[in-house]
Amino acid sequence: MKTISSRDNPLYKELKHLATSSQARRKSGRTLLDGVHLCQAYRQHLGEPQLCIVSESSAQHHEVAPMVARCLAAGTQTICMPDALYHALSQVEHGVGLMFIVATPSPEFPAQLSHCSVVLDNLQDPGNLGSILRSAAAAGIKNVFCSIGTAFAWSPKVMRAGMGAHFLLNIFENVNLHSLLASATIPVLATSSHTSQTIYQVDLNQPVVWLFGHEGQGVADDLMAMATHTVTIPQRPEIESLNVAASAAICFFEQVRQSQ
Amino acid sequence: MKTISSRDNPLYKELKHLATSSQARRKSGRTLLDGVHLCQAYRQHLGEPQLCIVSESSAQHHEVAPMVARCLAAGTQTICMPDALYHALSQVEHGVGLMFIVATPSPEFPAQLSHCSVVLDNLQDPGNLGSILRSAAAAGIKNVFCSIGTAFAWSPKVMRAGMGAHFLLNIFENVNLHSLLASATIPVLATSSHTSQTIYQVDLNQPVVWLFGHEGQGVADDLMAMATHTVTIPQRPEIESLNVAASAAICFFEQVRQSQ
Repeated sequence: MKTISSRDNPLYKELKHLATSSQARRKSGRTLLDGVHLCQAYRQHLGEPQLCIVSESSAQHHEVAPMVARCLAAGTQTICMPDALYHALSQVEHGVGLMFIVATPSPEFPAQLSHCSVVLDNLQDPGNLGSILRSAAAAGIKNVFCSIGTAFAWSPKVMRAGMGAHFLLNIFENVNLHSLLASATIPVLATSSHTSQTIYQVDLNQPVVWLFGHEGQGVADDLMAMATHTVTIPQRPEIESLNVAASAAICFFEQVRQSQ
Repeated sequence: MKTISSRDNPLYKELKHLATSSQARRKSGRTLLDGVHLCQAYRQHLGEPQLCIVSESSAQHHEVAPMVARCLAAGTQTICMPDALYHALSQVEHGVGLMFIVATPSPEFPAQLSHCSVVLDNLQDPGNLGSILRSAAAAGIKNVFCSIGTAFAWSPKVMRAGMGAHFLLNIFENVNLHSLLASATIPVLATSSHTSQTIYQVDLNQPVVWLFGHEGQGVADDLMAMATHTVTIPQRPEIESLNVAASAAICFFEQVRQSQ
């Protein structure tokens, strides 16, 4: 295991750049998994990281030590650094000091939209995106397509909220949703309060595409027009709408219920 | 309409304290509603505020002007202040400058737990709490009981996430959940991954109590033991659990579905 002890170390500078710049993460196709849970989930589903980083005070931690040992056994580059240097990379305040650097998965873009999918138009909030990814993975949905303008799925906040869901999904970003929806061979459903058909009345025991949009403005009109079905979640009229991640969870699990 | 133009004005100092200290809000039993949407929702459901505050540049805004006019017509104390002073009170970055100061509602604590309710044990995240309140109100659930340690429901973040749901609910805070659950005359349901009965198999066409807990640790063991039913949301085993606000939405709307 190597040790980095200076902020001027070139690798440290590179890591700092990766940790603090979402542009650097996008450009390099790499991201940072912060904390034992995310690192364990990554290894379980996708294998070894490119690089393992551990803070001095966490190296002997009962959950960290076996993770590090396995990295060393696998020949993965593993670096120990003083806590002060580590915490300048980490966004987790009271977390255990273990981090993986991994390649952002780049799944093959499908020629047709023919499997259960979630399509997100301009979704803003990292917490909402993470929650939607987590619900989708839990419901057995495999593909998530994000428009330009949707929050960056591989940001630390979204990954924390996703709790490892990222590693079970095919996530496509900066997608032209028009072309994508035009390629759909299965029903495309969007929720709307201006319709009478409820999610409980529509046949969800089949692959469908779920379309969700911006927290305030919803799905853009031109994309909404490409939905084959608009459905409503019946609710008290005094409430304008549900939180988008709550809506998505209700829709995905109504599909689970109907498929049982 | 009065104008405040100095940071040394005693009322301004009081407002600043209210805006920046959650303890001040708890102690005074008052809170701050920031933005047109929350103010409109409050007025619609609960009436006039104690005080209306408008920023100079927003006084003529097409949504704000009629709100202010109605406050003046109702004899509500209404104050205009320069944008710089207003923005020192507001947590909304690009919002329209309208704020209500209102008394935090203090509903009567029920002698028995006999109506549809949500019980929250040590829920931490303001966004999750706001989303749960919004889903509960949308599903027609009236009562929400929060333990000591649960996020403060009347904080600006929770109110923004709640989108006005607060004004449709009876929210009880700092509740002793043991005594409360001991008074239940209806089923108390908690979600768990260690049970085989699904939410789709249990009879929800009746009033029930939903018990949810801390984002990481779930419901405390001693409270969990007071649940009359533990139910599971069927999901892929690779995912540890759903986000608590997503779980709550799925449960509340399974109840809506069964009640239709």
